[in-house]
Amino acid sequence: MILPPYLLYIGKVADPLSVKTSRGIAVWRPELCLGQFRTTDDAIDLGLEDIGFEEAAARGARTLVLGIANAGGVIAPEMVEHVVQALRAGLDIASGLHQRLSSNPEISAVAQELGRTLWDVREPPADLKVGKGVRRAGKRLLTVGTDCSVGKMYTTLALEREMRARGINADFRATGQTGILIAGSGMPIDAVVADFISGAVEQLSPAREDGGWDLIEGQGSLFHPSFAGVSLGLLHGSQPDAVVLCHEAGRVRMRGMAVHTVPDLALCLERNLEAARLTNPDVIPVGIALNTASLTPEAAKRACAEAEDLLGLPCQDPVAMGVDRIIDRFGACFAL
Amino acid sequence: MILPPYLLYIGKVADPLSVKTSRGIAVWRPELCLGQFRTTDDAIDLGLEDIGFEEAAARGARTLVLGIANAGGVIAPEMVEHVVQALRAGLDIASGLHQRLSSNPEISAVAQELGRTLWDVREPPADLKVGKGVRRAGKRLLTVGTDCSVGKMYTTLALEREMRARGINADFRATGQTGILIAGSGMPIDAVVADFISGAVEQLSPAREDGGWDLIEGQGSLFHPSFAGVSLGLLHGSQPDAVVLCHEAGRVRMRGMAVHTVPDLALCLERNLEAARLTNPDVIPVGIALNTASLTPEAAKRACAEAEDLLGLPCQDPVAMGVDRIIDRFGACFAL
Repeated sequence: MILPPYLLYIGKVADPLSVKTSRGIAVWRPELCLGQFRTTDDAIDLGLEDIGFEEAAARGARTLVLGIANAGGVIAPEMVEHVVQALRAGLDIASGLHQRLSSNPEISAVAQELGRTLWDVREPPADLKVGKGVRRAGKRLLTVGTDCSVGKMYTTLALEREMRARGINADFRATGQTGILIAGSGMPIDAVVADFISGAVEQLSPAREDGGWDLIEGQGSLFHPSFAGVSLGLLHGSQPDAVVLCHEAGRVRMRGMAVHTVPDLALCLERNLEAARLTNPDVIPVGIALNTASLTPEAAKRACAEAEDLLGLPCQDPVAMGVDRIIDRFGACFAL
Repeated sequence: MILPPYLLYIGKVADPLSVKTSRGIAVWRPELCLGQFRTTDDAIDLGLEDIGFEEAAARGARTLVLGIANAGGVIAPEMVEHVVQALRAGLDIASGLHQRLSSNPEISAVAQELGRTLWDVREPPADLKVGKGVRRAGKRLLTVGTDCSVGKMYTTLALEREMRARGINADFRATGQTGILIAGSGMPIDAVVADFISGAVEQLSPAREDGGWDLIEGQGSLFHPSFAGVSLGLLHGSQPDAVVLCHEAGRVRMRGMAVHTVPDLALCLERNLEAARLTNPDVIPVGIALNTASLTPEAAKRACAEAEDLLGLPCQDPVAMGVDRIIDRFGACFAL
């Protein structure tokens, strides 16, 4: 478990897309964020206090979080210097970067010398096992999607927030690097060895006896030619009792694909349910999360109403409308 | 490419199951096998000449093949000694063992000193890319299964043999360690990182312009709770024009599973075709390979006839009956 409070590293990054992960942490876990570290006023401002490494450590920060995208996949010399300063100030480091912290000799040596922990959240655990497929205790919800990048992480976090607000015991289970940094732990499912996909999910969301729900972040899509294997293993390992289908209104082509079009919602849901029944025959759909960012508010309402009529499930945009009606249905189905 | 001729390592192994891979090479590629290396007459005899390392090298052998299972997953000290002797005699080493040859300091050092090649066939290439999903030139056949270990590798090799006997240009493309050692190259698909499953298959079987067929060895099953993700990525990456469904007659439970039963043949085929259409809408089934090892010859014939009636496809046991009728159908469908 990555220890909070966090100091979020921005450095000199001025491109909003490159701080997506740090922003996610600031939005979803503000109570864990002590401040941000920036080297220039032109850098992105997440609305947190600007704090240096020494002061952050003195005020109780435990971990510097590198929630930024690094050009070229390599840790720049300036960032290495900052990481070493943070280690010396007393902080652990958590990173969602492609290049592993532990692969940098200087960072690795200083961390070892000082006994600090380096968290490379894209690095899967070494002790994974193949999936057992045996039904396990506890309740699980999985978000599934028509495509990559349609809002599965956001939706899962929104469901957690709404359930907790209603006093329902529920925990977000992260499967991607941004989600893992938000949650403080998780499983980088697309980085595990292929044989262990479903087993890794069984480890992420083990048998649960407290009556609470695991809300598992989906990845990819059964209809994505590059990543469907990950999505299927994730579906089987999750053994979901409930699924929420995520889609982006107006998207025509599958992400990164020249030819493949986004599947029909009804077909996509049916294929997910068919496959999910292999490990949980009782799976049911409880709602649709529609990303309507590209629509006017009026068009967004119409698109949700159409999807509701089509599938007979509550449909909301978690960003613009919340997820209360999805949780109403979910609660009714499971007597929560 | 692993260089033949091969010397097959048996050592003192006396358990037939443990030499499965070496036996596969001796059966399917006898022309590549110069001999076998045994340390005792009690060891398994593959019917090859017993030859020592020096003599094998003198007679032209290029590679010592470790096609045996090693208890505990570790290379035993005696085997390390033999590998080093073989390296010094002038041989490269190819291994299907769990423990990588390169992870043994002595083997690694001697190989480096002498400039010999170590082939760890369970180790995927380092430069994999995500699948493109774009239809590529060439024709491909994939074997798919109701379960693991139903005969997909054997079937694929039998199809290759029969096609070649008819003058059809066809090449086996291996996806498991035994297949890779038989073929001399391939892709250990269950060992690649999850994000790259379909991309790894695109690399294994790239665009092909010579009119020949790639016959891709299937893995696992869409209905296996542990490995379905691998099977789906393999299906999408293969973009098969034709599939052959493999099944073991009489098998009730999925391999290693306490609860899950083997799927109905028609359902299994339909799900595979549905999924395959994502990357090749023209996919068709051309036959059923039924492993009837557990049946009497009479019962085997009846089982094949039943499967034929059920699915309208030729059904044969590749071991007991060959695959001529499957290739007849296949040839008719593709005007070969």
